[in-house]
Amino acid sequence: MRLSSRLPHGFTPNALTASLAALKAGGREILDLTVSNPTRCGFAYPEAEIRTALSAPTVLSYDPDPQGSRTAREAIARHHGHGLRAEDLLLTASTSEAYGLLFKLLADPGDDILVPSPSYPLFDWLARLEGLSARSVPSYFHERWHLDPGTLEAAVTPRTRAVVVVNPNNPTGHFLSKTEWSDLTAFCTERKLALLVDEVFSDYALEPPADRLDTALQDADPPCPVFVLSGLSKVAALPQLKLGWIAVRGPGAAEHMEGLAFLADQYLSVSAPVQAAAPRLLELAPAIRDQIRQRLRANLAALDAALSAHPHLSRLPVEGGWSVLLRRPAVDGDDACALRLLEHASVLAHPGSFFDLPGDGHLVLSLLGPESTFREGLARGLSLL
Amino acid sequence: MRLSSRLPHGFTPNALTASLAALKAGGREILDLTVSNPTRCGFAYPEAEIRTALSAPTVLSYDPDPQGSRTAREAIARHHGHGLRAEDLLLTASTSEAYGLLFKLLADPGDDILVPSPSYPLFDWLARLEGLSARSVPSYFHERWHLDPGTLEAAVTPRTRAVVVVNPNNPTGHFLSKTEWSDLTAFCTERKLALLVDEVFSDYALEPPADRLDTALQDADPPCPVFVLSGLSKVAALPQLKLGWIAVRGPGAAEHMEGLAFLADQYLSVSAPVQAAAPRLLELAPAIRDQIRQRLRANLAALDAALSAHPHLSRLPVEGGWSVLLRRPAVDGDDACALRLLEHASVLAHPGSFFDLPGDGHLVLSLLGPESTFREGLARGLSLL
Repeated sequence: MRLSSRLPHGFTPNALTASLAALKAGGREILDLTVSNPTRCGFAYPEAEIRTALSAPTVLSYDPDPQGSRTAREAIARHHGHGLRAEDLLLTASTSEAYGLLFKLLADPGDDILVPSPSYPLFDWLARLEGLSARSVPSYFHERWHLDPGTLEAAVTPRTRAVVVVNPNNPTGHFLSKTEWSDLTAFCTERKLALLVDEVFSDYALEPPADRLDTALQDADPPCPVFVLSGLSKVAALPQLKLGWIAVRGPGAAEHMEGLAFLADQYLSVSAPVQAAAPRLLELAPAIRDQIRQRLRANLAALDAALSAHPHLSRLPVEGGWSVLLRRPAVDGDDACALRLLEHASVLAHPGSFFDLPGDGHLVLSLLGPESTFREGLARGLSLL
Repeated sequence: MRLSSRLPHGFTPNALTASLAALKAGGREILDLTVSNPTRCGFAYPEAEIRTALSAPTVLSYDPDPQGSRTAREAIARHHGHGLRAEDLLLTASTSEAYGLLFKLLADPGDDILVPSPSYPLFDWLARLEGLSARSVPSYFHERWHLDPGTLEAAVTPRTRAVVVVNPNNPTGHFLSKTEWSDLTAFCTERKLALLVDEVFSDYALEPPADRLDTALQDADPPCPVFVLSGLSKVAALPQLKLGWIAVRGPGAAEHMEGLAFLADQYLSVSAPVQAAAPRLLELAPAIRDQIRQRLRANLAALDAALSAHPHLSRLPVEGGWSVLLRRPAVDGDDACALRLLEHASVLAHPGSFFDLPGDGHLVLSLLGPESTFREGLARGLSLL
């Protein structure tokens, strides 16, 4: 029996993953500078309050609403502000599910979508699994990252249905500028495309430029259909609870919400405990985000201090998000460099290629991990670069 | 901007749904004989135990496993027995998600799958949303329901990738016989098809024939790839907690699980609270299922008593599940009859057409609702048929 061609051709791990598994199996302790799971980073969560919120009496009753619990949506609308209403929101079990529903809403098998590059390597698969293809829209770096309208024009095809942007981007941290936002919405309007804006990291501005677009929701009346994605995974640093959402704006919003609700109704993926808990979790979230921002700043400061002893190395500005891009002389490929770091210094970092960074000369470090781990990782690793 | 052709052409409600909404808006109290939400049927759930299970300390930690928590899978394997192991199981947020993942695993856009008829009207959409088409395999009723091998042969195409069966079927209650199982697996083996067996109702045998297949898991070594679907929705009557699962058996099982785990890893939809709670919920489930079986039997007895006064009406045997098929003289269409019941007797029943029952002469009643409601519904409704 043959399987779907949507799947990868094989599941052979790459050299870095294979080496990591072998070292761990051999008992080697690895300093992980790629950590993205906030629940394993030593933050002080209000455990009792979270557990109480998840076990509200209402979890015993099922009241299926394809858009998700109105109380939860009202709390999310308050969290976002900018005039967002409960009726503009649809809950999902994750932003991955949100992408899946949006791709099903907007595109037929064989259509394509434009996705940002560099980026977290998920969009290609999410598109392919819905029968679509993802066409890369490379940003370029010149003092800061730029979304180039020319690359959008070059990537678009007659079968393009939507553009995805991530604001701020993961891993570059790039916030769209207000000019980029106007260019982007004008482009989508002219080409009759939907615009999907992934804002899971939007609460984590670190070194944001003055002209940034904090959130696409600032644009109350965009000229093209806009879908803003976010979720508790980053907003409350609770990825395990599985709550994402889509905010729907722009022309056709009512029809788009009707279609999304139809789609969500076929799956009804969002659990009652997290729907019941969402309002309380959003009240608890600012204190968790504060801890994370403090961590990100402390690790960034530690990186800057460490880099001062390595003048051939530098880092890119971190407008927002949980990652930093380290620049190094490309004396070897990034994949080989990451493997060297792992095997010789027991430090795990992502090569730029993991995020589709062009060429060589970049490692991507997470700023989320415990400060002691991060500093020790730098101390061990930087001298090898 | 055009939307995907995967969506329905419109969202106009049918006459029954529109009338129901209008009557409810006008304050009319409706006796709902279609209820399928067990949390609204007056069962005595062990509320404190369930709420405690959902707020275990482990919900604060995220340990993403594409197959789902091993502890939960071990508990599910014990629940099923028949030699099932944790490693044979993959958790999903719902059986709908399980179908989505399996369709993505097995089929490319443009392929088709064979789905049972009559059946709950979900498979067509779940297939279509993955770019597939669903081809109907009608069962026929002669003293009991029969899956006709000839209809499988007639429905299969060169692009058919899988056969779906529901054991016991919803709404007919038909359990596959052991002969039907052998025929079905032989057919799938010969045609190189996967066999998806939805067993969400398998714990609810009511009037089961002796030669029934209780569960496809009785066949430890099927000749074709077999995927058995179930979930807490029916096993523990807790649909709001969002936990389904797939058991993988037959040739290629390791490769199929690898593919499914890859797919599940792109979404990671299952929340930590229900994964943490699953072992305890499965311990609590038998007492809930007992209540439900008692309710189903009581309502079935009430129906038989009521039918004795209406010799022109009859019911079909209920081998299993939560529904019963009522036979009536087809003096009008089933849709018109259901509308008449609603408007003149304030009783909501499903016309056979809702489940794709051929011709006219059937209403489908849920046996799940409170006994007083069910009896009152029959008292008001049967005289109108």
